[in-house]
Amino acid sequence: MTALGDNGLERHPHFVSLEGGEGAGKTTVLNALRDALLQAGHEVVSTREPGGTPMAEQIRNLLLNVPVDGVQHEPPAAETELLLMFAARAQHVRETILPALARGAWVISDRFTDSSYAYQGGGRGIDSAFIAELEHHVVGIQPGLTLLLDLGVAQGRERTRGRDLYPDRIERERDDFFEKVRSAFLARARAEPERMRVIDATQSAAEVAADAVAILRMFIARTKASG
Amino acid sequence: MTALGDNGLERHPHFVSLEGGEGAGKTTVLNALRDALLQAGHEVVSTREPGGTPMAEQIRNLLLNVPVDGVQHEPPAAETELLLMFAARAQHVRETILPALARGAWVISDRFTDSSYAYQGGGRGIDSAFIAELEHHVVGIQPGLTLLLDLGVAQGRERTRGRDLYPDRIERERDDFFEKVRSAFLARARAEPERMRVIDATQSAAEVAADAVAILRMFIARTKASG
Repeated sequence: MTALGDNGLERHPHFVSLEGGEGAGKTTVLNALRDALLQAGHEVVSTREPGGTPMAEQIRNLLLNVPVDGVQHEPPAAETELLLMFAARAQHVRETILPALARGAWVISDRFTDSSYAYQGGGRGIDSAFIAELEHHVVGIQPGLTLLLDLGVAQGRERTRGRDLYPDRIERERDDFFEKVRSAFLARARAEPERMRVIDATQSAAEVAADAVAILRMFIARTKASG
Repeated sequence: MTALGDNGLERHPHFVSLEGGEGAGKTTVLNALRDALLQAGHEVVSTREPGGTPMAEQIRNLLLNVPVDGVQHEPPAAETELLLMFAARAQHVRETILPALARGAWVISDRFTDSSYAYQGGGRGIDSAFIAELEHHVVGIQPGLTLLLDLGVAQGRERTRGRDLYPDRIERERDDFFEKVRSAFLARARAEPERMRVIDATQSAAEVAADAVAILRMFIARTKASG
């Protein structure tokens, strides 16, 4: 059911992650993939990062600077942000993802480790070798399939305009930050073309979702053929 | 003012950490050191870990499983605990410790990185090489002087009995956990005898504090002589 990739991480064929910037349509895709899997008779756990367990959701609140008991704390340093992301992920993997995979469920996660390489690596300039150390020591697994919904930064901003009355700390970053994030995502997709598939998110939401479902079906057929 | 140790970490001569288990008298020692430094005309920043900034104190609450808005979340996995400790420390170093040292203040911290080697390394069995990676990448500094207040586990428990009506998640661990923590602290002190000094904490609180102040004064004299 699992295979060790070149990087020593265990790849799970029932684990799918969605990546990409805001406004790319991750939520629509997540719902479409879930419906396709449910229709095929599978149990599906839909989850997200940062978050996915009660403790990890508390870490999410810290990361996005949601006030606690009305108190607004200072923003995290880049290193603090990175470690909080991986602390939440360590918990998410152990409490939610691995137990679900072990009982045969599919797991679809809105973001996973690729986001740390893109946001904290590409966006904030943290050494990707250190991020890989964290991934190796506290995560240990990779999705079998990752869909990157790719969209230009200006277009993403256009789409989310008016949607978030209260943008969080990361959503308030400047365009050059998001350009670096997008480049890092695309570089990862080029480096791991088998796991990571890029979908043109300039299409309509329905077209993006249809592409995603088609890719998932091909992935399942290929996994069955090779399994 | 600073020196690179054998391990590549910058040692700050105005940075003192206190280590040891519960009931060893860290609070009394912290107050005695602070008073001695204030009397000598220094600015003193007293701080603690996990904590020491508003965000790091929020991380502390997560670590000790203090309910948020009345909600009790699940306990962290060992890896989650480790990364939360270092996330809080990354923030503490950047927001509180380095700015204080830069303006010439002394910093006394109730616990610092040695506690991660002892509790998450010795106590929970996390590979100390990985802890060293985290220390290298996100901390980068070491105290010039660390005082380890050493006390048997049973005696520590005896002293704190009745003090904590609501012991936190870590205080509720079993004796064999604390034996491993104590061994790890003592092993670190043997490995770095110049930085880390062991004080016999079976003595009275006044004797422990007097030992600590005497060691601090010798440390200052030695630093001046070599500086």
